[in-house]
Amino acid sequence: MYSARLDKLVASMAAEQLSALLVTSLPNIYYLSGFSGSTAMLLITPGKKYIITDFRYHTQVALEVDPAFELLDNTGKDILRESLPTLGAAQTGSRIGFESDNASYTLGARLAESDFASFIATKGLVENLRMVKDAGELERIREAVLVNERIFQEVLGFVGPDAAEIDLAAEIEYRALKHGCSGVSFSPIVASGPNSAKPHARFSTDKLTPAAPLTFDMGMKLNGYCSDMTRTVFFKDCPPSWEKIYNIVRQAKDSAHAAIRPGLTGREIDAVARDIITEAGYGDKFGHGLGHGVGIEVHEGPRLARIGEIPLAPGHVVTNEPGIYLPGEGGIRIEDMAVVTADGAENFNTLPTDVQVVG
Amino acid sequence: MYSARLDKLVASMAAEQLSALLVTSLPNIYYLSGFSGSTAMLLITPGKKYIITDFRYHTQVALEVDPAFELLDNTGKDILRESLPTLGAAQTGSRIGFESDNASYTLGARLAESDFASFIATKGLVENLRMVKDAGELERIREAVLVNERIFQEVLGFVGPDAAEIDLAAEIEYRALKHGCSGVSFSPIVASGPNSAKPHARFSTDKLTPAAPLTFDMGMKLNGYCSDMTRTVFFKDCPPSWEKIYNIVRQAKDSAHAAIRPGLTGREIDAVARDIITEAGYGDKFGHGLGHGVGIEVHEGPRLARIGEIPLAPGHVVTNEPGIYLPGEGGIRIEDMAVVTADGAENFNTLPTDVQVVG
Repeated sequence: MYSARLDKLVASMAAEQLSALLVTSLPNIYYLSGFSGSTAMLLITPGKKYIITDFRYHTQVALEVDPAFELLDNTGKDILRESLPTLGAAQTGSRIGFESDNASYTLGARLAESDFASFIATKGLVENLRMVKDAGELERIREAVLVNERIFQEVLGFVGPDAAEIDLAAEIEYRALKHGCSGVSFSPIVASGPNSAKPHARFSTDKLTPAAPLTFDMGMKLNGYCSDMTRTVFFKDCPPSWEKIYNIVRQAKDSAHAAIRPGLTGREIDAVARDIITEAGYGDKFGHGLGHGVGIEVHEGPRLARIGEIPLAPGHVVTNEPGIYLPGEGGIRIEDMAVVTADGAENFNTLPTDVQVVG
Repeated sequence: MYSARLDKLVASMAAEQLSALLVTSLPNIYYLSGFSGSTAMLLITPGKKYIITDFRYHTQVALEVDPAFELLDNTGKDILRESLPTLGAAQTGSRIGFESDNASYTLGARLAESDFASFIATKGLVENLRMVKDAGELERIREAVLVNERIFQEVLGFVGPDAAEIDLAAEIEYRALKHGCSGVSFSPIVASGPNSAKPHARFSTDKLTPAAPLTFDMGMKLNGYCSDMTRTVFFKDCPPSWEKIYNIVRQAKDSAHAAIRPGLTGREIDAVARDIITEAGYGDKFGHGLGHGVGIEVHEGPRLARIGEIPLAPGHVVTNEPGIYLPGEGGIRIEDMAVVTADGAENFNTLPTDVQVVG
């Protein structure tokens, strides 16, 4: 698994004439080596692979990291200055890539001043590989989706007139760990009534608003992989005006899902949902992209959005989450996760998206 | 409050001949403006102050941000190219600082290429101000400490032979929200027996180990400010060998606390605790620094560590957390938070640090 990923990365490096790549992004480090700690770097060369970290993480390296990696201890050492020059890959004149979007300007500028090699700002070398999930990753993502659905259903049991948004968020976070997840993949959104009109609401201490949309946007992190799902339900009745809007969002989502196939861009899939919402008269009330990739990070490539120019490919995992938001009143969003297949897409979610009245 | 902070920042900028500072660090943005969202930048000039963000956050800006700030909308715009050159502070030849440790290399390199101003990599301009807490911040920190202690005491009620580490972590996260915190300030550490020997353990699905140390390292985020506390307790008896080690750690902590006063460096306070642990024969079993600053972030300056060269000053808030770790067996760590006063330090914590047997 790791060797296949490393081979592909080395091929990408060769295309940019890099003799080595310094990996500083923690999700990329996890993807390439298995290391899940919070302080490390990788140095990838066509031959040797190194993981660089301090004594606090040596036991974790032994437990988690693929044996292809040799541990370089940097406890109390400036390894970039002391050790890199002595490694085969870092001869004078060699080109060493670093991750420009992840490295701080401080680190990048320091590397650029090195006299033992040329450091080259690179973008997306590992992220591009991560977009296409392998079978093991798809299985982990599916499990993260299923545990998320189970927790959502449990939490619906707490919806009632005395519940506040924050109470339901507490139940979500509690159940994440009780079901063996390492945590939520993002701080949950529990937004009732007017709060649901804000796509980036979190949760407040407000009690639930009856007969208004109640939006749950939640995800779990399980075995290193994320899930992300949104359901908008009604606590006490669903006014016909909201049911109409709900069904527009649902139709936009279903049509976008049906349109997914390899070769189309994220922009084209976004347009399918956006056109339906626009034709229904709510185009200016859908102010965000249709979806995003999910994997080790809850937001990664590819994007389903007006700026999504990457053609979809089998193994891409994306959210599909159209919404309509009426400021001051409320909003509807429905979100599932799907994997792009050879000829379409398969939905990971199993819960229905019918109008649901709870509590 | 914000105006006092901005005035101090402008004075720091003047000392570096900066006509403006671009602030990209979210904790710094919160400190200077009150904005708690996840996407924004500030542009600070001696005259005008700007907050730059997109339409998703305009309502939040109106609710949270100090009226000294003018909103610049960057929805769909490359504001660094389009608007900065037109602002008074960014004339050709002017020096605009940016936050080198926070900005990505991609952003910093792009700024460095600008033709309308010189962009200068700066470090710590806002972080240095944040180290000295004002009265309002100290009150928020005290509240975050007290709610953390209350939750710790509640969670002790769940310690028992059938409890797993992850169950106790779930109770901590649940109670964070139930008590009105925005969340935990870091993923809690609940580490029993051999796991407690790892200073950076999190929690596992392992059941608690009887008659071995059980370490809780936990913190809450309340009203934008963090707390951080460690208690090591015993579930079923405390073997005399552990009691001896416990009391060494406790003595190290108490002696370090008594030594804190303005003018001493973090290195000198660290040495007080380290010398006691070293004299007791465990110097090589205390492999981390004594403490760190706490505020908007759970880890900020100043550091109490061998590399802590900043002289302590009234208003600094620091953790005091010595530990002794015996690999494969277990570890003891005790941590309180204190504020440096005019002639010493005041402990925020109220819970005792005696040997405690629970469950």
